[in-house]
Amino acid sequence: MSSSGGRRAPSVTGRVFSILEAFDGDHRALSLTEIARAADLPVSTAHRLVGELAAWGALERGADGAYRVGLRLWEVGSLAPRSVGLRERAMPILEDLYEAVRQNVQLAVRDGHEVVYVERLAHPDAVRLFSRVGGRWPLHPTAVGQVLLAHAPAAVQESVLAERLPSFTPRTVTDPVALRRILAAVRRDGVAVCDGMIDLAALSVAAPVRGEDDSVIAALSVVVPSPSDGGSGGGGIEPRTLVPAVRAAARGISRALGAPTAARSDAVTRRGGTRP
Amino acid sequence: MSSSGGRRAPSVTGRVFSILEAFDGDHRALSLTEIARAADLPVSTAHRLVGELAAWGALERGADGAYRVGLRLWEVGSLAPRSVGLRERAMPILEDLYEAVRQNVQLAVRDGHEVVYVERLAHPDAVRLFSRVGGRWPLHPTAVGQVLLAHAPAAVQESVLAERLPSFTPRTVTDPVALRRILAAVRRDGVAVCDGMIDLAALSVAAPVRGEDDSVIAALSVVVPSPSDGGSGGGGIEPRTLVPAVRAAARGISRALGAPTAARSDAVTRRGGTRP
Repeated sequence: MSSSGGRRAPSVTGRVFSILEAFDGDHRALSLTEIARAADLPVSTAHRLVGELAAWGALERGADGAYRVGLRLWEVGSLAPRSVGLRERAMPILEDLYEAVRQNVQLAVRDGHEVVYVERLAHPDAVRLFSRVGGRWPLHPTAVGQVLLAHAPAAVQESVLAERLPSFTPRTVTDPVALRRILAAVRRDGVAVCDGMIDLAALSVAAPVRGEDDSVIAALSVVVPSPSDGGSGGGGIEPRTLVPAVRAAARGISRALGAPTAARSDAVTRRGGTRP
Repeated sequence: MSSSGGRRAPSVTGRVFSILEAFDGDHRALSLTEIARAADLPVSTAHRLVGELAAWGALERGADGAYRVGLRLWEVGSLAPRSVGLRERAMPILEDLYEAVRQNVQLAVRDGHEVVYVERLAHPDAVRLFSRVGGRWPLHPTAVGQVLLAHAPAAVQESVLAERLPSFTPRTVTDPVALRRILAAVRRDGVAVCDGMIDLAALSVAAPVRGEDDSVIAALSVVVPSPSDGGSGGGGIEPRTLVPAVRAAARGISRALGAPTAARSDAVTRRGGTRP
């Protein structure tokens, strides 16, 4: 789970981080002993630091004696511009898109070599997703990830493509040459379409969200049942017909964030074009 | 903003917390000097700690040189059972309610003497709210707050009622005797209705959400235009007609969380009753 486990500092701050890193999606409630073990700290040290974290509200101790991440930490975290800040400004447009498609609508950002989901609206009847808000996923097999990777700095792209990429289904593309072609198409078309690359039952369509400096800071996607899987294509929706709606919504969020190209009327003629 | 400012520890952990506390809804981007001043730390100390926080991802430094709360902190915070965990389990039902009423739907928890909003779905045409996800608000003038206060431990109720409570509109009830009557009615009716107590234009209807041990752990509300303000009552909706929908949705979330009374079929006869 931790991306900094290899460079853990011996400082008090480093010890606090290693305690926080003990918690993840599969480890939401931990005893003091489990925290000490996961953080590689003597129990006495863990005891003192966990006490300080709990006093502030970063951790909460339940009636069962186990520690969980506290509300206070989430409150501070919710001030992160790339999480709730982004989400709040995007929300009206995400809701419009959700109303229009009645499927899964997701908003994600890139952190290193992974996608982090910052919002998800899921219709009760929509295809089930493996992602969760605050969860991470590799870049290459998701439409949001392909958008974010296509617009990432060249060094990030090279480093991701040099990795041995995991495969999730027979349809996952992991070959660097094929991925390079996909990324070029994503930049050219202004949209990524991923069919069955994580789950054969799901197809996702994503478009880039740009920030104040016009760089791609997030990606927006709609996930529907895959027609290749015998799905009805989103309750009768042909996935390709989602492209204009996803692209328009992503542009609307970009404009709300102050992206120059999304505010210019001549952007129409540049739609889908690779930016210089 | 900080509730622990008065008991700031001189430890390294305490200094880290005081740095995080420098950020709030009105201070989302701070320079190193501003952080040092807000955290009451020498610039050299702040510099070292901010560097460690940024290296881990708890803070992020922008191109403008200012620091903001980092995505990494939000990710860990999103593991808090009372934030995203609660929200994720409640979301399908929140979405059903949102689909039905096309207004503002909110989910909130109590932290000390305040309400913390963990989710909000806002219809583009709905009445505008002052609240934000991750934001705090006093308990007494909001329907969610009245529900949470009505079911809080007696010591919390007494302590809140003993405070000099702020007034926001001519309709805000701050008198402890009148509030005590309101809280008793909320327990009796299983619902709180707040008309124009924060904003004359808004009326909110809230019901309690119960957890595994059947205690009230959250409150769910719908916010519509106030008819007293000449509003149309939610696009033609009479606010009182929202009560059954809000109560049913709150019970649905309670059942999803494993609340015993929400799972029992005999709970129908107890609906709206004060629990022993």
